[in-house]
Amino acid sequence: MNTPSTNPGPARGPADHEVRDQIVAAATEHFRLYGYSKTTVSDLAKSIGFSKAYIYKFFESKQAIGERICANCLREIETDVRAAIASTNRPPEKLRRMFKAAVESSLRLFFEDRRLYDIAATAATERWATVRAFEERIKAMLQDILRQGRDSDDFERKTPLDEAATAIYLVMRPYLNPLLLQHSLDHTEDAPAQLSSLVLRSLSP
Amino acid sequence: MNTPSTNPGPARGPADHEVRDQIVAAATEHFRLYGYSKTTVSDLAKSIGFSKAYIYKFFESKQAIGERICANCLREIETDVRAAIASTNRPPEKLRRMFKAAVESSLRLFFEDRRLYDIAATAATERWATVRAFEERIKAMLQDILRQGRDSDDFERKTPLDEAATAIYLVMRPYLNPLLLQHSLDHTEDAPAQLSSLVLRSLSP
Repeated sequence: MNTPSTNPGPARGPADHEVRDQIVAAATEHFRLYGYSKTTVSDLAKSIGFSKAYIYKFFESKQAIGERICANCLREIETDVRAAIASTNRPPEKLRRMFKAAVESSLRLFFEDRRLYDIAATAATERWATVRAFEERIKAMLQDILRQGRDSDDFERKTPLDEAATAIYLVMRPYLNPLLLQHSLDHTEDAPAQLSSLVLRSLSP
Repeated sequence: MNTPSTNPGPARGPADHEVRDQIVAAATEHFRLYGYSKTTVSDLAKSIGFSKAYIYKFFESKQAIGERICANCLREIETDVRAAIASTNRPPEKLRRMFKAAVESSLRLFFEDRRLYDIAATAATERWATVRAFEERIKAMLQDILRQGRDSDDFERKTPLDEAATAIYLVMRPYLNPLLLQHSLDHTEDAPAQLSSLVLRSLSP
């Protein structure tokens, strides 16, 4: 791991955003090994080789670092989901692929080697701002797909758009939220397809 | 709490099923106060005033007592759900009331004062036989309602019955399984109605 000099001069040292990225990268690695909830900023400072005060210059709390990691993680899921949606022009198929990609991406990030699960669980339990914003973006994606499907006559138009999107979000939620997903691991193989089919039946004109 | 003589004669003492019920009642109370997972059969024996050997005459393990308590609890939920289904003749309304009753009954049993949550969570995590049988009965109830709704022309007939019932079960699962329900407490007010509406849209002929 690269460590900067302990007293980087403000002029010659790395830019702030570089130091921030470096702290986040090191913290991600540390949390992955030792968990988020049991680690203190002191532990983190020791492990990165920075002083605690230096870390506090860039992040006001452990949660601020956690939020950054969480945001990176959710952005990765979002990128996968958007790519899946963009991979077809047919709105019904967009919905199927969105559900499948969301589950696969969440499983990979939260459960492969329990990587990042601890931080995701804390974020979901405490309903961090990053998590709430992510949920809103997922709902917005659903609304977009519904709108496209209504325009292409694939979906019915009677149900208020917002009501339909919220209900579909509730169907997907157990496979997006890591707290619920951990108790649904037996279902991640079949449930996305079965639930997508049910949702598509609910949307038929 | 009633305690029998410590050496009940096989002829004059209480019948076996009475002693079993007495152990289950005392254990329910004990688990409610101290939790299921941390209690041993020794703790239980001490608290009931029986010898450990006497308890083992009636139950082969702590889990055997737990299974009985869990079965009682699930039977209570099932009774509520069946009553809700029987309270209307219209299949779509049966489905709505079934979902609502299942959530309300589960919330009352598992979360009011966290009563019995500990034992329900253990049962769900370890997938006890009582839990698996309960899930099958819920799926059978769903199939019954679907059959009735197909006969009355309220529901479509294209989707294989089993496929439709399984998918609806998956929609209800996060509100029936205590492990998932604990993370859905913010949604128990609105989600059952929103999801019932989505499910009914999926069933429209």
